Amino acid sequence: MSKPLLGVAIGDPAGIGPEILAKALATGEPQSRATILLIGSMPVMRRGMAVAGVELPLQAISSVEEISQSADSVLILDDGLLGDAEMAEIEYGKELAICGRAIGHWIKQGMELATSGKLDGLVMAPINSESMAAAGTLDTIMDADEGSRFLAVYSGPLRIIHIFDHVLLQDVCARLTTELVEKALKVTYQTLVSWGIPAPRIGVAGLNPHAHGPQEDNAITPGIERAQAAGINATGPVSPDSVFRQCIEGKYDVVLAMCHDQGHIALKTWGFEGNCGGFIGMPYLFMTTGHGTAFDIAGQGIASHAMMLSALNQCGAFAAGQGFLES
Amino acid sequence: MSKPLLGVAIGDPAGIGPEILAKALATGEPQSRATILLIGSMPVMRRGMAVAGVELPLQAISSVEEISQSADSVLILDDGLLGDAEMAEIEYGKELAICGRAIGHWIKQGMELATSGKLDGLVMAPINSESMAAAGTLDTIMDADEGSRFLAVYSGPLRIIHIFDHVLLQDVCARLTTELVEKALKVTYQTLVSWGIPAPRIGVAGLNPHAHGPQEDNAITPGIERAQAAGINATGPVSPDSVFRQCIEGKYDVVLAMCHDQGHIALKTWGFEGNCGGFIGMPYLFMTTGHGTAFDIAGQGIASHAMMLSALNQCGAFAAGQGFLES
Repeated sequence: MSKPLLGVAIGDPAGIGPEILAKALATGEPQSRATILLIGSMPVMRRGMAVAGVELPLQAISSVEEISQSADSVLILDDGLLGDAEMAEIEYGKELAICGRAIGHWIKQGMELATSGKLDGLVMAPINSESMAAAGTLDTIMDADEGSRFLAVYSGPLRIIHIFDHVLLQDVCARLTTELVEKALKVTYQTLVSWGIPAPRIGVAGLNPHAHGPQEDNAITPGIERAQAAGINATGPVSPDSVFRQCIEGKYDVVLAMCHDQGHIALKTWGFEGNCGGFIGMPYLFMTTGHGTAFDIAGQGIASHAMMLSALNQCGAFAAGQGFLES
Repeated sequence: MSKPLLGVAIGDPAGIGPEILAKALATGEPQSRATILLIGSMPVMRRGMAVAGVELPLQAISSVEEISQSADSVLILDDGLLGDAEMAEIEYGKELAICGRAIGHWIKQGMELATSGKLDGLVMAPINSESMAAAGTLDTIMDADEGSRFLAVYSGPLRIIHIFDHVLLQDVCARLTTELVEKALKVTYQTLVSWGIPAPRIGVAGLNPHAHGPQEDNAITPGIERAQAAGINATGPVSPDSVFRQCIEGKYDVVLAMCHDQGHIALKTWGFEGNCGGFIGMPYLFMTTGHGTAFDIAGQGIASHAMMLSALNQCGAFAAGQGFLES
């Protein structure tokens, strides 16, 4: 069986993306799971390798049709948008339109390749939204189709899908419906099955203290019942203050959280290193790191590559149907 | 300087309270910080000691006026409500009106002694609200004066005060006001100062993702500004997903959380053992354990006394003006 092919948009050249990508790939772990195709710029990656103090066997290709999946080298699709001539303009830690334009282009390339089935997964290195706004490419990654894709974070045994992401709490209370809960449960179920978890156990958080309130009665409980009727192993609503600890202890494969901070308070307070995330419900497997471009330390070679390595390894495992990695 | 005098209502005789109290006191730690006055029944405590496999030098007194604060023994105020004759009726793990009546009586005694200044602090061992409801004593502990007392939990370096406790999230959104935030900050500040923390640093959680929303603009930020104008070191609103981790790492002495599950998700997911809690804003120092009566394992001698020991030690330290205990 050939390895899956993962595209990796290298992120903002002025941030930590290229250097942590170089460090993560220098471990050799991601390449043992998948063929890695960087989508970006050879000079930017060369600078990232120099900052990281590592050397990778990079092999430039001009089209995915050239790819031999047994390649040991790291492939890079570079259509010359940021060549040696442009490198002088790129200063670490700056929001730059030239970077925003390149990021938008690389992500778009990755999305098109993934949508057409030429990639088995897409990983996005950290991007800077101000650079992208300056270049007018922010709409590449903005997508407001609430209820069709769901924010996911993975942190060792703690894995969380969020129904609502950056939504005001008063709107979460008003907009939570049976249909949304049912949809999120079905997407979660189908996604986990496709990743190699045959009968996913889903713990569903309530919204209110001890999971007692009108949103539980009118949306969460009936949504769970509909999912159960469709054969999905969903448990809840569970008290929000208990469901995440239960997941860490192995009771569920994943928690369905109602809102951003239920999941993110659990994730960040627990403090496990090496988390990664993405969205589920998209037409292809999409993952990213749990942090941003860290402009304050970019170019110093001190940024941790733990989350980037997790994103690459976990994306490779999902694409190969191997489920969640032990960690 | 004499040691503070702590009252300890021994909790539901059918639950784990008496046995974990016996185990905690057998360490000798609470007695090194404070004179301990149990408020309850000698036969119930004798049974608790037998279950726990420990022996404590219990000394019955009939009034607090008898107390010599240098006493090494553990004092017990027992007015005979549950004597040897009644013990046969008390079966572990059962909700019993006879227990509910006793619990209510002991708590009321403790509250009266604390309110009149005869105790320096009151600790409540786990109670069972169904037993108390059966006896009609539940109103002893029910107190709906929202905005004057605030739920507090302490878990090593993570200490959290909650503005709202068991309140629906939609009501939290609607009822959060500048006055409430200001009041909670002032009560928190005064309480911590009285416990021996001279200039408490308070991290204030936002309510919405990344602390951006109408509640931040209309209540939290102006409430913080009023507290700051009164000389209180309050920081925020901080993104709810970051403020608890920052507290663990030592940036604040305490976090002011807006609602029950912000604090409780952080507390329970972090998973530190030995947390305890209480209410602040009451006329006296009041603390309790972070768990209930555990009827399923009561009487087996296997219940952990970690939280009870924390509650006793921390209450003694607060009463003596020694601040938060390292742990």
